[in-house]
This record gives sequence, C-alpha cells and structure tokens, in this order.
Amino acid sequence: MIDLSHHLNIASRSRHPSPLKKIIQFMALDDMVSLAGGLPHPSLFPLHTSTITASSPCTKHQIKLDLSAGKAENPFASFLQYGSGAGNAQLRQWCRDFSQHVDRPLCESFDILLHPGNTNAWSKVVNLLCERGEYILCEEFTYPSARACWIPLGNYAAPVAMDAQGLRDDSLESTLAGWELNHPGIQRPHVLYLVSVGSNPTGATMGVERRRKIYEICVRYDIIIVEDDPYFFLQFPEYELNPKTTNDPSTSNEQFLASLAPSFLQIDYQGRVIRLESFSKTLAPGLRLGYFIAHPFFIQRLLLATEVETQDPSGLSQAVVLGLLQTWGLDGYLTWLQSLRDEYQARRDWMIRAFQHEFTLVPGSQHPDLDVADSTLVAVLDAVPIFSFVPPTGGMFIWAQFHLHANPTFQKMRHDQSLEDPEECFAEHLWEIPSKVLLTPGSYYHPWQGEDKVTTQTRGAKPAVTNFRFSFSMTTREEMGRGISRLAKVVRASWEL
Amino acid sequence: MIDLSHHLNIASRSRHPSPLKKIIQFMALDDMVSLAGGLPHPSLFPLHTSTITASSPCTKHQIKLDLSAGKAENPFASFLQYGSGAGNAQLRQWCRDFSQHVDRPLCESFDILLHPGNTNAWSKVVNLLCERGEYILCEEFTYPSARACWIPLGNYAAPVAMDAQGLRDDSLESTLAGWELNHPGIQRPHVLYLVSVGSNPTGATMGVERRRKIYEICVRYDIIIVEDDPYFFLQFPEYELNPKTTNDPSTSNEQFLASLAPSFLQIDYQGRVIRLESFSKTLAPGLRLGYFIAHPFFIQRLLLATEVETQDPSGLSQAVVLGLLQTWGLDGYLTWLQSLRDEYQARRDWMIRAFQHEFTLVPGSQHPDLDVADSTLVAVLDAVPIFSFVPPTGGMFIWAQFHLHANPTFQKMRHDQSLEDPEECFAEHLWEIPSKVLLTPGSYYHPWQGEDKVTTQTRGAKPAVTNFRFSFSMTTREEMGRGISRLAKVVRASWEL
Repeated sequence: MIDLSHHLNIASRSRHPSPLKKIIQFMALDDMVSLAGGLPHPSLFPLHTSTITASSPCTKHQIKLDLSAGKAENPFASFLQYGSGAGNAQLRQWCRDFSQHVDRPLCESFDILLHPGNTNAWSKVVNLLCERGEYILCEEFTYPSARACWIPLGNYAAPVAMDAQGLRDDSLESTLAGWELNHPGIQRPHVLYLVSVGSNPTGATMGVERRRKIYEICVRYDIIIVEDDPYFFLQFPEYELNPKTTNDPSTSNEQFLASLAPSFLQIDYQGRVIRLESFSKTLAPGLRLGYFIAHPFFIQRLLLATEVETQDPSGLSQAVVLGLLQTWGLDGYLTWLQSLRDEYQARRDWMIRAFQHEFTLVPGSQHPDLDVADSTLVAVLDAVPIFSFVPPTGGMFIWAQFHLHANPTFQKMRHDQSLEDPEECFAEHLWEIPSKVLLTPGSYYHPWQGEDKVTTQTRGAKPAVTNFRFSFSMTTREEMGRGISRLAKVVRASWEL
Repeated sequence: MIDLSHHLNIASRSRHPSPLKKIIQFMALDDMVSLAGGLPHPSLFPLHTSTITASSPCTKHQIKLDLSAGKAENPFASFLQYGSGAGNAQLRQWCRDFSQHVDRPLCESFDILLHPGNTNAWSKVVNLLCERGEYILCEEFTYPSARACWIPLGNYAAPVAMDAQGLRDDSLESTLAGWELNHPGIQRPHVLYLVSVGSNPTGATMGVERRRKIYEICVRYDIIIVEDDPYFFLQFPEYELNPKTTNDPSTSNEQFLASLAPSFLQIDYQGRVIRLESFSKTLAPGLRLGYFIAHPFFIQRLLLATEVETQDPSGLSQAVVLGLLQTWGLDGYLTWLQSLRDEYQARRDWMIRAFQHEFTLVPGSQHPDLDVADSTLVAVLDAVPIFSFVPPTGGMFIWAQFHLHANPTFQKMRHDQSLEDPEECFAEHLWEIPSKVLLTPGSYYHPWQGEDKVTTQTRGAKPAVTNFRFSFSMTTREEMGRGISRLAKVVRASWEL
C-alpha cells in the first residue's frame, strides 16, 4: 500500500483521537476501580433476552436465534451498551474473514469498520476526501441520493460515459487527460464514485478487464475509487432470449463465487479502493448495517469521524447479524446469497418475459439505425422499435432507452422552437399519462449540474432518446405482467399504433 | 413561531427534496403497478419474528414483547425495510404525545424527527447551522465529543462561565455584548450548545429562572438554543448531608414530572430551541435511537440531511422501542423513568457517603477562602480542604475542584518558572500516581482553543485549583468505597498528611 494521505480534506486532517482513549488503557488494568467512564449501568437496561426466528439458508425450515444464550464473549447487554465506534470486534472479524474469502483483496493489510448503511458510508467518504468546489467522477447515470449528498457540500459531478459494462475507461481517460483544458483553474477530480455491479439505474455490471483498465487510469491520475457495491451478490448469468437449457442445476458455493465479477479490491495493489459493503440487499435494509473495507489509514480517519458523527451502528442490528452469520456459517451465508441471487434472477426473467409477451424482442443488430450495444434487445411493436435495453446481469433494474423518432407527439415537440429540451418534455408527458403503471424517469439519475448542462442536447446525449428505469425487485410476476401490458397500451396510444 | 431561516448554513440552504418524493405520491394510488421503487422484496428478508423479554416498569416480573404478533399497522417486516428517513410514524407520534405531556412545549406546532442517538443529532445540528470559522457558545466545561465534532469543521468554542446551575446568564450576556469588541471582524455566535440537566462533566442542573434569563438573552441576540438533554429524567432531590428523613415515600408520576426542571421548550415562544432527546440513558445506548423536537422548519431541513446522510435509525431499534413503549404505556414509561432516577440517585448518595467515610465533608461556608458556591461541600482531611463539589441534582457525575494551595508538590511546581501551567502539571502528576483508582481529568472538558488559551492562567480560571470528574454510574457501592479509599491514600501521600 502506498501513502495516500494527501487525499484527505481539511476536516479529516484536523481529526484527533479523543483524549478519552488514553483513559481506556488504564481502565483495562487489573483491579482498577474506574470512576472515569460515563456509561449507564447495564443492570438498568430494560431488555434482557432476544429470540429471533430466521430463515435457514438450506431448507425451508426456520431456525431460532437466541441472542442472549451462552454468549460469554458477547453477552446481550454488551450490544445494548455504548460501543467503541468501530463496532463489535467479533462481527468485524467475521466481515474480515468473509471479505478475505470472497473479495480476496490484493492488499492483505486492509481494515474493516462497521457503518450504519451505505448511505451513511458514502456521506462519510465525501466528508473524508472532498473539499467544497471539487468535482467527483461518477457514472453518467448516478444513484440520486449519492449526488444529493454531495451537492449541498459544494461538490460537482464529473460524469463519465457508460456502456453495457458501466463506466467507460476511454471516457474516464479523456475526462482526466482533458481536465485542465476543459476546466481551467479547477482541481482535477481525485475521487471516483461508482456502483460497479448492477448499477443503479443502468443495471450495468463491470467485467474484470474493464476494471483493470479503469484501475490503471486511477493509478496514473491518482484517483481514489469508491466502490459502492450493494448488489455484488445479485449477479446473474446472461439472459437467454430463447433459452436452450432449463434451470441450471444448483452450483457449489465455490462455483457461485467464481461466477461473480471481482471487486476492485482484487486488483488494488496500492490501497486506493474504498469499498462500501451493505447488508441491506443481502439481509434487510432496516438493519442499517454495513462495513467499509479499505486502507488502514482511511479506516482510522473514518473511525475518528464515526466517533463524533454516528458512533456504532445499532447494537441490536449488530447482535442479530452476528448471531445469524455465526449460526449460518460462511458456507451457509454463501448458500443464502446464492438463493437470493436466484430469486432476483427469476424476477429479471419474469420482467423480460413480460416484455416479450407484449412486444417483440429482437437483438439490437436488427436495428443498426438505433446504434445500440451488441447485447441490446429491442422491444418492437408493429415493426416500430419502442425501447431497447441490455438485459442486466446484476442488481434490480432494467434501464430502457425509449426511441422517440417514430412518435408523432415527439415529432411535434421536436419542431416546436419554444421547447428547449423536447426529449425531456416528451418523457414528462409520457410519464404523466394516467396509465396505472409507474416507471422512474431517467432524468432523476442525471448528475450534470449547471445552467449549461441541463438539456439533452447540451449534455451531448443521444437525440430522440429518453430513459426510464424498470425495477423488478418489488412486484409479483402477475403485477409485472399487468404493468407491462398497461405500458404497451400507453405506447400504442402514444405512438398511434 | 418566527422565521429563523437566516440561521441555516449554506449546505442546509442548498438541500432540496429528492425527486423520488414526487413518485411516492403516485405509488400510493389505487391499483397502481409500481415498477419505480428500488426496494428489496420483503419476502426475501431472512428474519421473521422477534421476541424480547423486558423489564416491567412496576414489578420485578419480566414481560414478553412479541414484535411480530398482531401488528397489522406495523408488521415486523416493515421495520426491516427501508424507511422514509423520518422514522416509523407511530413511534414518532408516541414521542410527540410524550413530549406534549412531559415537555409541554409552548410552541404547539413543534415537529419530531427520529435520529440514531444524540451524537449524530448534534453533528446534524452543527451541519445545519454552523459555517466554517463560526464560534459556538457552550458551557466552559463541555462534553468532549460535542467539541470533537465541531473542531474539524472549522468551528470554535465561545465558552460561557458556569456556576452550580450551569451556564451563567451574566457571562452569556457579557460574552455577546462584548463580542464585536473582543472579536473584531468575527461573526457573533448564533448557536448555543448546552446540557442543561446533569451537565457532563459538571453535573449542574439549570433551574427555571436561569432558563428564562438565558432564553431572553437568546431572543435579544438571536441565538438558537440546542438543548442536549440525555439526563433529563435523572433529576434528583438535593443531597442531605445529615439526612433527617428516611427514604422518600414513592411519588406519583405527576409529582415526579412536577419535580423536574423544565426543558427550554416550555419557555420557547419563538421556536428557537432544538431539543435532542435520547433513549440512551433511559433505555439503552446500543439502541442508537433518539429524536429531535424542534420548529417544523428545522425538522424539515434535518430530514433532508437525514435522507442522504443516515436514513432511518435501525428498524430493529425502532421496533423494540415502539413495542416496549406501547406495552408499558405512557404511565408505565414514567414509572420506569422514576425508578431509574431512584437508582442513579442512590448511586450519587453512595458516592458522597464514600467521600464522607474517608474525608470530613463540611459546607463551603466553613471555608470562605475557597470562594465556592453556597451549596458546595468541602472534603477535608486533617483540617486541610482537599476538594470541593456541589452535590449534583441530576445526571451521573460529580465535578470536583481540587484545592492545591496546601499541597507541597504543587507549591514547588508553582514556583518553578519553567512550568507554564503548574495546575495542569500537578493534575497530570496526581492522575498518573499508580493508585488503581481512575478519575477523568478536568482538562478533557476544556473547550478553549488557540495558543493563547491553553493554560489555567490564560483561561482566567481560578489559580491553585484543578478539576476531576467522578462518575457514579458504573461502579458498585463496594467498588466506590474501595476507589475513594484509594484516593484518600493518594491524597494523604501527596499532601503529606
């Protein structure tokens, strides 16, 4: 690992360990009577035992977790008391072992710090690294809450073009190489934020070769990579338009792990990757629990911020997750993750099959005029291409480009000189047709800021195209069918088919 | 309530509601098929039921909370899902009703927002109101984590003198009246942070008359009062040096409430009080749960920050606290709080009785040379006053002034020209004598910053005095006795008695 301390912002440089740390050493001495601590007395906590019924990773039977029984090392009351800021040591160790097994970080001296969810983790990273006025490199379609975190802090997005594999290395390179020319007097970005698996909203997952190229650019330009990866375990095989095989036979955990695109940690030889891990998608979001994996130097600074900004994540959440993971074991957890992956893959397939039921899906190569990636499918109605998408190999979302050139309403808008952004106007118009099916407009994910970057044209985006995000995580198969059928009806009416 | 929007800092002014909010309205429409949300499917959460055994507020029997049974409005899975940022609506309503009953805010249109503990709440308030370079008014001895939060953000303390009732109104007035003169070119502070009950470290609790005076000064100088009040329910009757009565007969909840110094909310007719409520001392710190009570305008801005910085507190913590409070009921909770108060009062009394066992305790009036408050007790050994303290009427701490004029080592230090701060040197020397009893040095609580304010003399503090904090929350009666006896031994040796 190399020295990366110059990446800290002023606030992070100014953090100092609490003087109370000195006291904690003394507290641990044999026979010490400490009148120094300010903790409430655990005998006065009104909660005594906790029992949870949980899924078994392998069977349909439920298992019982007794969070209070026989835990000499971690009595239940210890989870009810103030923690150290870093989180329960056993849970941290579990996460470390798991990461070692799954992520196989190249830098073996990585550290772990628990956090209360990736929203908070990203906020802490922005406050660790970014100074007001700085630009943050991000995907050209970005998770809106990530952006909503940095905008009030005075940061700006430097969007990098994406393709079916997510962030493009050539666009990253040209953004950085041309920075001084295009942004005179503004510091070159030193932080890259990305969701490299099942990107929200585009669903793109980045393969290992792309990762290597991006990593090398980040080495050359001294960029810290922040890998926000909640969907890591929801990586699916390619969608088969005309499946030759029936369902895959179940695979071993090792085969499952081997099938996953690797984390940036696996190619990070300098310690410049900060990985944000979350239990929100793998266990439950309400736990508000996840962990950082990073260079010990960054972890130490993040810990100092944690001590004064959040303290430990909820002790109940820690107790439940530790209990569950210990009971399941590493292999059980991987089995659980694999079955979860299968569930979301089935949902992806339901959604695409619902498309197939209402539209004709054809490979992008059949519509060369649309200029889409090879792996794209085009949803066609009466020979008119309506929308296209790359079937995602990860996550919870399908990102659709709606092709508007054949739409009569859009044609009118396009020739209306009073409209600054006809694509966006059409998207709003389409979205607001009362159709009882709700998609998320693509504009929600635009990271561009500034007067000069608000329209489709000034962003340099494809003309006569607008994006919508379909989520396949929350609806039943029947609801998906109903929703897509309603969408087809709206399309027929709007395209006059 | 008045318009206080000019108190927001630039970051808070720049916060805008997420565009996703617009979508949420549509999601709620009848028969809508939403493909817009990005939530994981609750059927895939591996946690199903949770049972907790808890204390009964009235009896020694334990009660059983089933967090999953018969909760049509709040099924257990709803606590495992992403929340709205504001927290569970029923729990918020519970807190609102409770605050209405207990705090009786003068501004009835106050709002509630859940937060993950007062550490995070204070951090959010600093990030709501304070700009880099600004000064924050605070008690002259301040909770170190509160200060460690604002220092890296570029804020400075403006310490206000304290007495037995906490922050002094005359010192606040003179600090503000003389601000421009003493701090030319620096903006007058507009935020006051204080722990007005059982202050950490001084143990001081502020009476209603003092509160009114301070509030009026804050109105005059347009100051926002941030009342961090974790010890509110741990308010004790005065300590009786020579108790005439035996234990008080049990009092009703109404008598209990009437015995408590009121919150600033009760005199706040403009909405300039932001109150930080915590369950850490009343239930358990590991829950990481509390709530803001404030002007709806502040709550709305704090909510916007919550959405991108932390999201909801842990759903498990919310479920447990809601379950417990609903089962106990408002009256049951007050009974619990009263018994908790009794427990900590007993601990305060054990500690002072342990002092009495090793030292002679006499009223401060018997040592007029010490210049201490009327309610002070002086711990004397062989006619030499060693330390003095005001028996606290709230919280977990006894704040002791050690009087050093008769100490031979201190006398030598005092005449050693090479020592810049003999009081502090002596404190360190005393603290480091291996005595197997640990106190917290008073210097940990100094909010003064800057080269010119580091010594006892430059701070304008009393000469030949140094402070230590005794905590009575965590030790048994026997341990307290052992600890104080060890302290007496150290004192005898150091003072050569």
